[in-house]
Parts: sequence; C-alpha cells; structure tokens
Amino acid sequence: MSLVVVGSVAYDGVETPHGKVDRILGGACTYIALSASYFTCTRIVGVVGDDFEEGDIQFLQGRGIDLEGLERVPGKTFFWAGVYSADMNERTTLTTDLNVFADFNPKLPETYRDQPYLLLGNIQPELQQSVLKQMRSPKLVGGDTMNYWIADFREQLLATIRDWDFLLINDGEARMLSGENNLRKAAAKILDMGPHTLVIKRGEYGAILFRREGHFMVPGYLLEDVFDPTGAGDCFAGGFIGYLASQGVEPSRGDIDQTDLRRAVIYGSVMGSFCCEKFGPDRFRTLTRAEIDERYQEFKTCTDF
Amino acid sequence: MSLVVVGSVAYDGVETPHGKVDRILGGACTYIALSASYFTCTRIVGVVGDDFEEGDIQFLQGRGIDLEGLERVPGKTFFWAGVYSADMNERTTLTTDLNVFADFNPKLPETYRDQPYLLLGNIQPELQQSVLKQMRSPKLVGGDTMNYWIADFREQLLATIRDWDFLLINDGEARMLSGENNLRKAAAKILDMGPHTLVIKRGEYGAILFRREGHFMVPGYLLEDVFDPTGAGDCFAGGFIGYLASQGVEPSRGDIDQTDLRRAVIYGSVMGSFCCEKFGPDRFRTLTRAEIDERYQEFKTCTDF
Repeated sequence: MSLVVVGSVAYDGVETPHGKVDRILGGACTYIALSASYFTCTRIVGVVGDDFEEGDIQFLQGRGIDLEGLERVPGKTFFWAGVYSADMNERTTLTTDLNVFADFNPKLPETYRDQPYLLLGNIQPELQQSVLKQMRSPKLVGGDTMNYWIADFREQLLATIRDWDFLLINDGEARMLSGENNLRKAAAKILDMGPHTLVIKRGEYGAILFRREGHFMVPGYLLEDVFDPTGAGDCFAGGFIGYLASQGVEPSRGDIDQTDLRRAVIYGSVMGSFCCEKFGPDRFRTLTRAEIDERYQEFKTCTDF
Repeated sequence: MSLVVVGSVAYDGVETPHGKVDRILGGACTYIALSASYFTCTRIVGVVGDDFEEGDIQFLQGRGIDLEGLERVPGKTFFWAGVYSADMNERTTLTTDLNVFADFNPKLPETYRDQPYLLLGNIQPELQQSVLKQMRSPKLVGGDTMNYWIADFREQLLATIRDWDFLLINDGEARMLSGENNLRKAAAKILDMGPHTLVIKRGEYGAILFRREGHFMVPGYLLEDVFDPTGAGDCFAGGFIGYLASQGVEPSRGDIDQTDLRRAVIYGSVMGSFCCEKFGPDRFRTLTRAEIDERYQEFKTCTDF
C-alpha cells in the first residue's frame, strides 16, 4: 500500500531568529516524503539538477524513500531563499531560482502507476492533473495548492481539485479560493468544488478538518522553541496521508471513517511540529516512530476534557 | 457559594461589518456577570451615572444578578466607542469617556465580603488589590488585566497578581508581561509571579490553560457568523469562574482538580462564543442553560479523537 508524492525537491536558504543556513535540502516533495516515510512506503516524483548531493540522496534513501521517479537533469536544482519575521509568522522570499524545476514535467515510473495513494504537492494544477492521469486506480488522492494558482490559474485549479478526495490548504488560501471570510462558510463552498474532505492548516493555531457531516478541530502543538517553520505544512500533509495509507483506508469517493481522518490530522500536526525543531528537514535525521507516538499521546493529554 | 465581580459597567458604541449601534450596555463587569449568572449567584461591584437606564437594571436583575454593589452617582456612565476591522480581529477605539468611572473607588457591601469567589475585571491594579482586601476569606480569586497596566503600572500589577489564584489574559498581554515571545516560556514565567493557574485567551483561536504540571489547549468555537466580538473575553472569564463556583471548587492555593479547570475553560469558550452572536450583550437576553450545555457537547464532538 504505497504512496506516491509529487512536488518540488530543492535547496533552501533560510534565516530565522535562531540562525541562518545558506543551503539545505528542501522542497515540498522532500518534506512530504520524509514525513510520510514514518508511516508508509513512499515513492517520490521530482526533478533535480546535477548539483544534487549524494548525501541528500542517501538521507532520503535511508528513510526508505523510493527515488526511481526523481529525475536528474543537467543544470541546477530549484533554489529558494527566505527570511522569517521575529515571531516567525511571516516570511519574506529573497530568492526563487526555478532552475531545472522550470521545465518539470512529471513522468511516473511504471512501478508507481498502480499505487493506491497519491499526494500532489503544490505545483502547477495542470501538472498535478497530468500526474493523476498517469495513475491507474488510485484509492485516495489529495493535494496542496497556493495563492498564486488560486488567483491566476483558477479554472485550471478547479478542474484539477474536482477529482481529489482531499484538499489541504491554509486559512488564507481557503478564504481566497472560496471568497468567504468565515472559515465555516469557506469550507462549505470548497466542499462543493469536489473534495469530500478539506483540511485547513492554521500554522501555530492548529488545523481544522471539514467534512459535510461536521468538522474536527485541533490546536497547534505548543513548541518550546520554533527553530525553523519551513516545511511544517508539507510535513503535516505527509503525516496526514501517510497515516491514512498505513491504515489501508480505501474510500469509495467519500466513504471514509471519521476516526481515521481525525487521527490522521493529529499525526499531521505531530509531524509538522517536529519539523520546526531543527533547520530544514534535519529533525528527520534522528526522529523515531516512538517519539511520534509519544507526541500523539501528548496531544491527547493536552486536549482531553 | 456566590461570586463577586468587579469592573466597568458602561455604554458602548460599536461598529462591526454587520452593523452599528450607537449606545448599548457594555463594560467588563457587565459581561462577566451576565456570563457567570448562568452558573452561580453573582454580585457586582461597579459605578454608573444617573443616565443608567432602568431597562438595563431590569436586564441584569432578570438574570438574578445582585446589584447592591452597583453605585449610582451624579454624572454620566463610562462610554466607549470602537470600530472593528473587516475580519474583526482588530478594533480601533474612537471614544473613551471615563465619566463617573474616573473616580471609581470600589466599596464592597457587607453582604459581599464573606463570599468565596472573586473575579477582578480589568481595572487599575491598586483598585483590584483594595477589593481583594475587603474580602474576608475568599476561596478562589482571579482576574484580568491589560497592556496599559502591564506597561505603565508594572510594579503595582505584580504586587496585585501575586495573591491571585488565576490570571486570565490574551496572548499579546502574556508576551508583554513575561518578556517572552514563546507562549510556553511566557507561561512558565507568569506562573512564577504568583497565580497557580494561567489562562491565555487567543480570540478566535481558542485558549490555553497553563499549570505547573502541564497545559490544556482548546481551539476556538467556529461560529458561522461573528456579529460583534465585544465582551467575548469577559464572557470567557465569567463562564470560567462561574463554572468553578458552581462546582464548589475550593483550592488551598493551587490544589485544584484538573478536570474542573478543563471544563471551566470549555464553558468559558462556550460563553465567549455565544457573546459574539449578537450586538453587545443581547445574546444573553434569550440564551438558555440548555443551549450552553449543548454547545459544550459540541466542543466535545468537534475535538474528540
């Protein structure tokens, strides 16, 4: 029951109040896959340049991630750099060099096409659609998007998410996509666009799972130190679908167990919180499944009444 | 087992994206008392001018609130006016006419002094201290404060909260009071200032209860329409202490049941959410205890996993 993840694999330059790194492994696909790898067998689809380091290949492979779909082409790997505000709730992009990612045209290896789970990271909606078409009979499909696609590629995006089981976006994106300021109303409109499940991520304030029959809310995990929030939303996505895959969830368009979904949201939150504890994806060099389950229990302890 | 509440009783002018009222009953004491009145017998201490309307007296008395401590003096009642931003997360004060509230010097009626529960609304710390001194043997004491007292009356404020069981403030105030940006660290510092219990209110994002042995988090109730958030934080306080009073909680400086405290936070959240459903305190003209308990259950349904 393995998971296919598509998205950017990149190098990032990150500055937070805790320090600065000039070049560290990054990209949505990387974070999603690292996070999901704790729950299920994960295969990635992406593109990198000939500068992609052997050490990073080994890091991903060490987490059991299948890299058959990671294309290597001449040129440089996607590079992004940004700096976070003092409270880390805002970030300013300093550099976006698409490099080899500009011509990314995801092609799924034959061994990927029969997999049941698909997570479409934040890339151009048409590419997301093309990936879904390459899958033969996916059982659970979802993904992420961003303000840029919502504003300037709206029709493409709507045609793309129509076929998804779930959409994972943040609150600002949900408001933008729906045209509604109130999250309950925004969610109702988005659930009319196709996905039967919507997860709205609210950063440090947690997340809300929306379904037609009701919603589920979880506050954000209270970290003692937020080192670097880069990738936290993607790690949420990885934990969310990773957990559902590990439970063998097979919804026939909407028929899915609430208990599984709620637990998936908690595992997503857990993975997002770990991600913030070190620069880039470094926390995943040492993180164990036991620590994940311990934090899951902590969520229970901190929210039970 | 009744509750004494001290604070402002006022008239407000409020403008939100949903409409505008030029003059409606307001003030922290009013909101706290109305909210607490659903849980326990409540007595208020405040001051109003000779313009205070008979209809408002009847509204408060109709909720069973004891007004013996509500002084009436010549002059005008405290008046505040403000306008909310489109998303209602910010508000701009247009008018603050202290009027008779400028000389407020709370005197507790004899019948109030033996009561076990005391909630000190946001007024000058010295006045809060003087009220506490007038009580003979309070069993549970807590209150609110604001940025103004934290910045300009710090020593007075620290001397005041030292004797409190609990402090209820918002996240910005907690950061300001502690000098720590991280809420966990901020809470640890504040718990060293005296109160054994700290509740940090986060508006639409919910609340966190901090105690030395751990914390409890609750997300905010998702309203379909936020009509007017004025008084929501005070209604939280009223529900919080009102519920604890209804359970006869009697901590000997810190020894208090976590289950009671957690439920009190939920009831606080419930009352804050109802407050936002109509202008000013109008929701409390029709709200029933059955509706309150129903929303408490809804909180359980929406957060359980």
